[in-house]
Amino acid sequence: MPDLCVLGLGLIGGSVLRAAKAAGWTAWGATRSSDDVTAARAEGFDAGGDLDVALERARAADALVVVAVPLPAVDEVLRRVAAVVPTAKLTDVVSVKGPVHDAVRRLAPRTRYVGGHPMAGTSTSGWGAGRADLFRGAAWVVAVEDDSDMAVLAEVVAFALAVEAHVVPASTAEHDAAVGRISHLPHVLAAVLAAVGADGGPLALALAAGSFTDGTRVAGTRPELTQAMCEGNRTALLDAVDDALGRLGAARGSLASTGGLAKTIEAGHAARKALDAQRSAVRTDVTIDLDSPGARDALRAVGARGGRIVSLDGATARAQTS
Amino acid sequence: MPDLCVLGLGLIGGSVLRAAKAAGWTAWGATRSSDDVTAARAEGFDAGGDLDVALERARAADALVVVAVPLPAVDEVLRRVAAVVPTAKLTDVVSVKGPVHDAVRRLAPRTRYVGGHPMAGTSTSGWGAGRADLFRGAAWVVAVEDDSDMAVLAEVVAFALAVEAHVVPASTAEHDAAVGRISHLPHVLAAVLAAVGADGGPLALALAAGSFTDGTRVAGTRPELTQAMCEGNRTALLDAVDDALGRLGAARGSLASTGGLAKTIEAGHAARKALDAQRSAVRTDVTIDLDSPGARDALRAVGARGGRIVSLDGATARAQTS
Repeated sequence: MPDLCVLGLGLIGGSVLRAAKAAGWTAWGATRSSDDVTAARAEGFDAGGDLDVALERARAADALVVVAVPLPAVDEVLRRVAAVVPTAKLTDVVSVKGPVHDAVRRLAPRTRYVGGHPMAGTSTSGWGAGRADLFRGAAWVVAVEDDSDMAVLAEVVAFALAVEAHVVPASTAEHDAAVGRISHLPHVLAAVLAAVGADGGPLALALAAGSFTDGTRVAGTRPELTQAMCEGNRTALLDAVDDALGRLGAARGSLASTGGLAKTIEAGHAARKALDAQRSAVRTDVTIDLDSPGARDALRAVGARGGRIVSLDGATARAQTS
Repeated sequence: MPDLCVLGLGLIGGSVLRAAKAAGWTAWGATRSSDDVTAARAEGFDAGGDLDVALERARAADALVVVAVPLPAVDEVLRRVAAVVPTAKLTDVVSVKGPVHDAVRRLAPRTRYVGGHPMAGTSTSGWGAGRADLFRGAAWVVAVEDDSDMAVLAEVVAFALAVEAHVVPASTAEHDAAVGRISHLPHVLAAVLAAVGADGGPLALALAAGSFTDGTRVAGTRPELTQAMCEGNRTALLDAVDDALGRLGAARGSLASTGGLAKTIEAGHAARKALDAQRSAVRTDVTIDLDSPGARDALRAVGARGGRIVSLDGATARAQTS
């Protein structure tokens, strides 16, 4: 069990620090927000305001460094990491992986970086919003690249398992494409739906029932958070938006010409049933030796099949796939 | 308090019959589904399998006739109404109002028709799915046309109030435009989102969290129900889909050119806040004399401002608007 150095103590970073302590790991954090430092300390956590001091401790302890700042602040934090712990064991919790991966290559190329993305919480922020159990049952994607350091990967997996997350291995590109479709596109469509509904005036809003309320819920998220998340995954989100435009345009054409929506509605129904079916699918166990040459491919195959890592014993990961 | 004759005993019709009895109204129903007749009788309700027999009773009692069959079956039922009770006091509970209004003009032109739409329940169907309290707190749109019979309108309003619905007056066209935006478009977008997500494969579905689950929930509705509802409101839904295509296309263009989504996300956020604000708005009372010349305009103005009728005393309606 390595030590953990958490840089950034907002919703996710603050929850990482809490969850680490609750799981019995030695962990400390740093943030430039003096309010968050004060609040964290008042709750008995090991928190400070100087990233370099936290990183010096990480170097001394060979700690796993967790970058937990928003995407726009990542570059600056990586520069500090490279300056103080150039070969750090490094992970992050940012919601897109391609841009962080690129930034690490550019600014901290000697670190042993394995990206991560715990998929929990976007509608609140700050230390006060965090919880020790935020990651319980949530997906935590661990990025598996051809050059990933498997020892660091094992540490990231071990931590995500310790906080009871569902550990999903996937490549950086696979991750970004998937979240473009199931996390970022929903935010864009919710914004579009909310605006079209409000254009109908107070009568339309007065008649809004479950389908509209559910479909626009995430439009209530703080817009700067949604915007940063979506814009950070620009390329993959464009693909998803293009698919949505194509399908919506086809529905429009069919409705205008024949008046029929069967194809659109039936495809959506089948897709939603596929989600339910996958969630209730019987699972098959797979064992992966992380030291084997095919480990990376095997891990990515688990994620591609909708599976996850459920335990880690030394270098032996046990996974379940549907 | 008039008597009530309910034609069709599915989810909505069956709930109308239950709610009427619970509110102390004399009510009977008829349906061609012998299973539903048996089930309704077993629960002590006055139900039969012959529409003409039910309509003969309606003529004798000058009952308010409620058409509660799906849109494709409306024409046939209207022909029976016109044959047995040509000047019936008539309403309906179908989810689109323009097509029903047109069908009444065509097939039962002498009836005194005032359309209605209780906005409750789409994902289940049949007598067994009904409930006496289905309409409590739900919007019940009452269609106000320039030639509406105000005495029948008052009866429809009285019934909707008796079952504790939120009575929203609006013209047929206003109703269809509004539900196109806040009920039918959400179903189309949910179908599109579900399909684009499932195209991302098992990994994408495994990573699906609240934004995707919420945004696709209504795609789980039985597709034939969704299809009939959306196709029945073709013209208004086309307008809503075009608005959505325009906004999504603008988002696509902005993301591709500058990488920015601020306009889309901020408009969606403001719209969602408008929904919340309207729901918590302080209400202003308005009193409308249904016998006055301006009553129809005054009623429609209440609905257009997001208001509703809260009580009826003789021909005096009290309404609240935000």
